[in-house]
Amino acid sequence: MVIAGPCAVESYEQTLTVARAVQKAGADALRGGAYKPRTSPHDFQGIGPEGLHILRAASDETGLPVVTEVMDTRLVAQVAEFADMLQVGSRNMQNYPLLAEVGRAHKPVLLKRGMAAGLCEWLGSAEYIAQQGNLNIVLCERGIKAFPSGEYSRYVLDLNVIPAVRSLSFLPVIVDPSHSTGVASMVEPASRAALEFGSQGLIIEVAEEAERGCDAAQAIDAQTLARIVKFARAHSTAAEVHEAAARA
Amino acid sequence: MVIAGPCAVESYEQTLTVARAVQKAGADALRGGAYKPRTSPHDFQGIGPEGLHILRAASDETGLPVVTEVMDTRLVAQVAEFADMLQVGSRNMQNYPLLAEVGRAHKPVLLKRGMAAGLCEWLGSAEYIAQQGNLNIVLCERGIKAFPSGEYSRYVLDLNVIPAVRSLSFLPVIVDPSHSTGVASMVEPASRAALEFGSQGLIIEVAEEAERGCDAAQAIDAQTLARIVKFARAHSTAAEVHEAAARA
Amino acid sequence: MVIAGPCAVESYEQTLTVARAVQKAGADALRGGAYKPRTSPHDFQGIGPEGLHILRAASDETGLPVVTEVMDTRLVAQVAEFADMLQVGSRNMQNYPLLAEVGRAHKPVLLKRGMAAGLCEWLGSAEYIAQQGNLNIVLCERGIKAFPSGEYSRYVLDLNVIPAVRSLSFLPVIVDPSHSTGVASMVEPASRAALEFGSQGLIIEVAEEAERGCDAAQAIDAQTLARIVKFARAHSTAAEVHEAAARA
Amino acid sequence: MVIAGPCAVESYEQTLTVARAVQKAGADALRGGAYKPRTSPHDFQGIGPEGLHILRAASDETGLPVVTEVMDTRLVAQVAEFADMLQVGSRNMQNYPLLAEVGRAHKPVLLKRGMAAGLCEWLGSAEYIAQQGNLNIVLCERGIKAFPSGEYSRYVLDLNVIPAVRSLSFLPVIVDPSHSTGVASMVEPASRAALEFGSQGLIIEVAEEAERGCDAAQAIDAQTLARIVKFARAHSTAAEVHEAAARA
Repeated sequence: MVIAGPCAVESYEQTLTVARAVQKAGADALRGGAYKPRTSPHDFQGIGPEGLHILRAASDETGLPVVTEVMDTRLVAQVAEFADMLQVGSRNMQNYPLLAEVGRAHKPVLLKRGMAAGLCEWLGSAEYIAQQGNLNIVLCERGIKAFPSGEYSRYVLDLNVIPAVRSLSFLPVIVDPSHSTGVASMVEPASRAALEFGSQGLIIEVAEEAERGCDAAQAIDAQTLARIVKFARAHSTAAEVHEAAARA
Repeated sequence: MVIAGPCAVESYEQTLTVARAVQKAGADALRGGAYKPRTSPHDFQGIGPEGLHILRAASDETGLPVVTEVMDTRLVAQVAEFADMLQVGSRNMQNYPLLAEVGRAHKPVLLKRGMAAGLCEWLGSAEYIAQQGNLNIVLCERGIKAFPSGEYSRYVLDLNVIPAVRSLSFLPVIVDPSHSTGVASMVEPASRAALEFGSQGLIIEVAEEAERGCDAAQAIDAQTLARIVKFARAHSTAAEVHEAAARA
Repeated sequence: MVIAGPCAVESYEQTLTVARAVQKAGADALRGGAYKPRTSPHDFQGIGPEGLHILRAASDETGLPVVTEVMDTRLVAQVAEFADMLQVGSRNMQNYPLLAEVGRAHKPVLLKRGMAAGLCEWLGSAEYIAQQGNLNIVLCERGIKAFPSGEYSRYVLDLNVIPAVRSLSFLPVIVDPSHSTGVASMVEPASRAALEFGSQGLIIEVAEEAERGCDAAQAIDAQTLARIVKFARAHSTAAEVHEAAARA
Repeated sequence: MVIAGPCAVESYEQTLTVARAVQKAGADALRGGAYKPRTSPHDFQGIGPEGLHILRAASDETGLPVVTEVMDTRLVAQVAEFADMLQVGSRNMQNYPLLAEVGRAHKPVLLKRGMAAGLCEWLGSAEYIAQQGNLNIVLCERGIKAFPSGEYSRYVLDLNVIPAVRSLSFLPVIVDPSHSTGVASMVEPASRAALEFGSQGLIIEVAEEAERGCDAAQAIDAQTLARIVKFARAHSTAAEVHEAAARA
């Protein structure tokens, strides 16, 4: 499972252009933020409901299911109307009312790990969703805060957690190589590394033109995405052959 | 400003007993959780609305204003009806819709620092509250996640952030010595240290009997609280004399 | 470059058994500690000079060059007499007299990253070796201390640092998947991930029998090593083809 | 116990000037580096043996005992000839041959905590010194590496470790408010906080003129030192009275 798309939905043209590139690269789903959690209230907060309509239209046009973040309990129903999968971001990993509300929405959920979350805390948060009868949860490692954060990468990508999750939980776990590195040139090697370490998918930021967008420093272009998707497919096939051989 | 009280409101008797002890110890306000954010949904979540009524009654009985946590945007109005100050917990420091809603409630706000929050991220969160016209915000350091977390204390109390906050913001900043240490015997020395480092107040967990309650390991008894309040008063008077001398 | 061998040299038989397994698995060099840095002085400290003789004999027997740690400036000449590559461990990354002494020994050096070392600090330490005229330095990422250390893995493997090193320095950089995870079952996926992220080699702990040895929890068996070496060879060939194609 | 002095010994005049100021401020001992551990070999490394002579002369002149760092096992005897107390710096906390050598020198030892050292690792290092029959060890907390390092202070001062040390070990523990904050204006409040949290002493950088010296950003002037010493004396007396009252 490779999910890709722009950081934020900015316009129909921008979103459709990226969605078509994502589709052409062979990815499985489209990501994009209509509501953006930003450190400062003075930064761009996303275009809101209009962004949801644009995502839906881009999805209808390309056939790609849509993953988008919801931050407000009161907007879960609205977002669920347009999205195929609801994302709970790392800042909200322990926003328990939101987890419960998302659990009641009858949609698959992508639960990002908090920047300071231990494994038990992360699985505890998934349990808040599951408690509402929704077991369709995908976990996502997106980098943690540690002393090197900011020196050469934005966060520290913690791949050790991947096999640890898989040994404790039946929930699938994927990796976000864009936020966990914050550096566009690291996204491709981080993606391959994540898959080799047991990650069952990726969620990646792609930009129309790599030099713009709200998180431009980490967005990759469509060609790089295509190479990552190709690697993911080959890796997945190899893993299946390997498992079949192990069973035989 | 010393705020003290039980981890969670459990019953009227328990809350009133602690509230009276808090009042007798000389503290300024009563804390207590009606809604508790817990890592697992299977843990005690607080007694909810009933807890708010109990807090109000204990406040009326003792004259102590009440500080209590709100986690759900949809409950801000309800909690604000009973509380004198709304607490946003560390797990919700970047729950921006909650910050905005709390900012609109016309009540003082206690904003705890997230476990992985840098100073700019913390001040950015305060800005979400301030943007709604509410500048009555108190910041609260409550320990961060770092490698020693769990070896001898639950979190790492980061007092260096106190003068840093005070040099960047006009907002008052206090310290939670209970959660930042997680060890009852550390609460008194941590309180004194925090005040010496420039903290303008404290928020402390006190238990009826130190060995019980949901965060028993870190709750202190009323006598210890009384010593801390006495220290805080003397410290505050000394600081005023010092400042007056500096002005003269 | 795959370096493999026992945590500590315990006896000639043990070392030769492991060395033959390492050779058969196709690895390039033998590691093993004659002098072991241990948190407590009451723990096994290595067998010292006898261990160096054993390593040399195992090397002569198998043709594998030997990498071993030196911790004491006064023993650099002694260790250099027996070893083909001198290892400076993470605890000594900022032991500057040792770095200078090792730099004067006219032997390749493996410089492990300190558990709290930023990239600039690590490269600064390499500079102490280089200053003595020895540019034959290999850097080695071995996990850092961060809040998850101890919950599901011993350290946090920081692979983001690999491309960062490669963009700033001409020195080759490898990864230690044994210490950075501390979990035997993570060593193989961590090895593949490291190579995909740009690591130019691996240093791995292998045990005669996986359940014993001083760091038994993280030692892998010879079959697992053979799979890792095979992956490393295929990966290296693919990278060369890729680069040749890029040049053409 | 308040130890104070310049970061590095630069000249006889500079050292004597600072030593006299330290003496006048009422401190108990003089610190100063003849050998300086620096991240880059291209930075000033200290003036070496000449610095030891200068420290000794300043000590004879003022009556203040001298604490100075030793980094090289081969120089322990030399440094011990001039110094009254040997300092092992945080970079060398796990340099076990140095610890053993220092343990054999029959001089009191100041053992700084490593930047990534857990409590057990720190006490393990003290054990290497004690094993040589030298129990005259003072532990020193000097800040750890965690995600905020560099945003508003150089390290994170971890005061929670102070009562933890005191509950596990009979060794005295002091705090270095200069390196743990890296900010001159934080040194005085950090000193008071450390004493309130149970620290049994302080080691502080003082500069002839606050704006110069190798770690100028964190050096305080003599007047600030005098206030800190006064606070430390009053605090110590109060603690004795308190303990006497508790015994009566």
